[in-house]
Amino acid sequence: MRMISQECLIYAYSAKNPIALEVEAGESFLLETHDRFTGIKDFSNILGSDATRINAVTGAVFVKGAKPREVLKVELQKFEVAQKEGVIVAFPGRGAFGEKITKARSKTVPLKKGVAIFNEKIKLPLSPHIGRIGVAPATGEIPTAIPDSHGGNLDNKHFVEGTAIYLPIFHEGALLGVGDFHALMGDGESVLSGIEVAGRVTLRCSLIKDFTLTDPLLVTPEKAMTMASAKTLDEASRKALDNMAILLSKVHNIDYIDAAMLVSIAGDVHVCQLVNPQKTIKVVVPRSLLPLPL
Amino acid sequence: MRMISQECLIYAYSAKNPIALEVEAGESFLLETHDRFTGIKDFSNILGSDATRINAVTGAVFVKGAKPREVLKVELQKFEVAQKEGVIVAFPGRGAFGEKITKARSKTVPLKKGVAIFNEKIKLPLSPHIGRIGVAPATGEIPTAIPDSHGGNLDNKHFVEGTAIYLPIFHEGALLGVGDFHALMGDGESVLSGIEVAGRVTLRCSLIKDFTLTDPLLVTPEKAMTMASAKTLDEASRKALDNMAILLSKVHNIDYIDAAMLVSIAGDVHVCQLVNPQKTIKVVVPRSLLPLPL
Repeated sequence: MRMISQECLIYAYSAKNPIALEVEAGESFLLETHDRFTGIKDFSNILGSDATRINAVTGAVFVKGAKPREVLKVELQKFEVAQKEGVIVAFPGRGAFGEKITKARSKTVPLKKGVAIFNEKIKLPLSPHIGRIGVAPATGEIPTAIPDSHGGNLDNKHFVEGTAIYLPIFHEGALLGVGDFHALMGDGESVLSGIEVAGRVTLRCSLIKDFTLTDPLLVTPEKAMTMASAKTLDEASRKALDNMAILLSKVHNIDYIDAAMLVSIAGDVHVCQLVNPQKTIKVVVPRSLLPLPL
Repeated sequence: MRMISQECLIYAYSAKNPIALEVEAGESFLLETHDRFTGIKDFSNILGSDATRINAVTGAVFVKGAKPREVLKVELQKFEVAQKEGVIVAFPGRGAFGEKITKARSKTVPLKKGVAIFNEKIKLPLSPHIGRIGVAPATGEIPTAIPDSHGGNLDNKHFVEGTAIYLPIFHEGALLGVGDFHALMGDGESVLSGIEVAGRVTLRCSLIKDFTLTDPLLVTPEKAMTMASAKTLDEASRKALDNMAILLSKVHNIDYIDAAMLVSIAGDVHVCQLVNPQKTIKVVVPRSLLPLPL
């Protein structure tokens, strides 16, 4: 199996990124991700001169045959946590706790036998996932910290082994970048980090020619979810709900208002993250209501 | 078991409400709830002269011994759906779909053997819960449509049989009001209604003397959740996260920043509803992290 090393770093999603690996559609490949902080141990300057170093992902992966206006399906086949400890960093004055985080604090968390040891009494089962996955956006470049229609820093904790992400393609080859591996994170990522750790992910890309998407979509064995990002949670919710109603309307051949009613009784509006420069909402329905893969 | 009929309607949470039933702490009682629309079948004027009729709950229940600055624990012991069909109503220009709901539409949904029949192909298991539960607020009166620290229209779909709600008490007797029974609703209540139906709920109130709360709290067998309401989801999130961090800090004897880190890796920020005049967020953690009852 071919692989792409964690040293192949990109700092923005862009059509100009150097290509680190070319893959065939349908080919499984291994991608190493650095921990979110690319090895930084002193977090006193994370909002200063170290700021760019904390926002790198691995890439770019060129998917042969991928063309604009098609959809890239990325199957997350296998995830491995690559370190025996992770780190949580609370960022001062940012995040959802605002000024109550008075200064940067980091906490090293041992990871043993699938469990995170927060302290002697609090032990939590791991749920390894990737925070960032995206393609080159339609125009210009978008820093990896920012989530939008191209993907990016969506921080959907359900990006776990055994799921599939669908992304709109804007450029030939799609130019995928993946990173921000978490051993564990809650919906929200409220202090601006989960348990950050390096990881190894096996991925397989394929192309869907007869479908278009405006925003990323995730399918798990039990659930399907639309996502959308915007400056506020309220605006992101409206977009993600609209995306879901449009999809349900198509799949079930019902009109928009009936689809909206279906969302109201069967769809859950949950936060992916509320701390990145744009906030991301997911609208989650039972997989049976969105019988994907498309 | 004593009971309170669905004809005992109140339209606002207020210390001035007539008392429909006095109960002892620890006594189970039966409370009937009208459907949200108090029997309206024609929804063409729901935003006009019928607006008040669609916002009634059953009450007020006076809990003997309840005093301000204590906490009221309400155990939701048994729920029964009281009708064979429910109704979903999409409100025009309101809710999260905004102007895409061009006019009011209602849809009658048969409820059979624990399943809602949305159409011939879409059938969804019921999850009966109450949308509104609250006490008389500190000052004045608050229409039942509005959620806030006293409870009210929180629309937490986890207000199901077998859970317990904790509410701050502001007046002697607490003056509980309960209603807005749903056969099924998604987190968000995105078109402004779930499957609305009449219900019968068995409740038991008890008093916690040595604890104070600023906002409602829910405990289920698996989860514990803080809630908060505000004009925007962003503001409601900050309040609900702060409530959770304060609680975790007390329970685990850790400082606020460590508690915030714990929320970031183990707490989920989910929407209760985003359509009422104030929006409500819940922050959900495993029950093991908040070993309640208090």
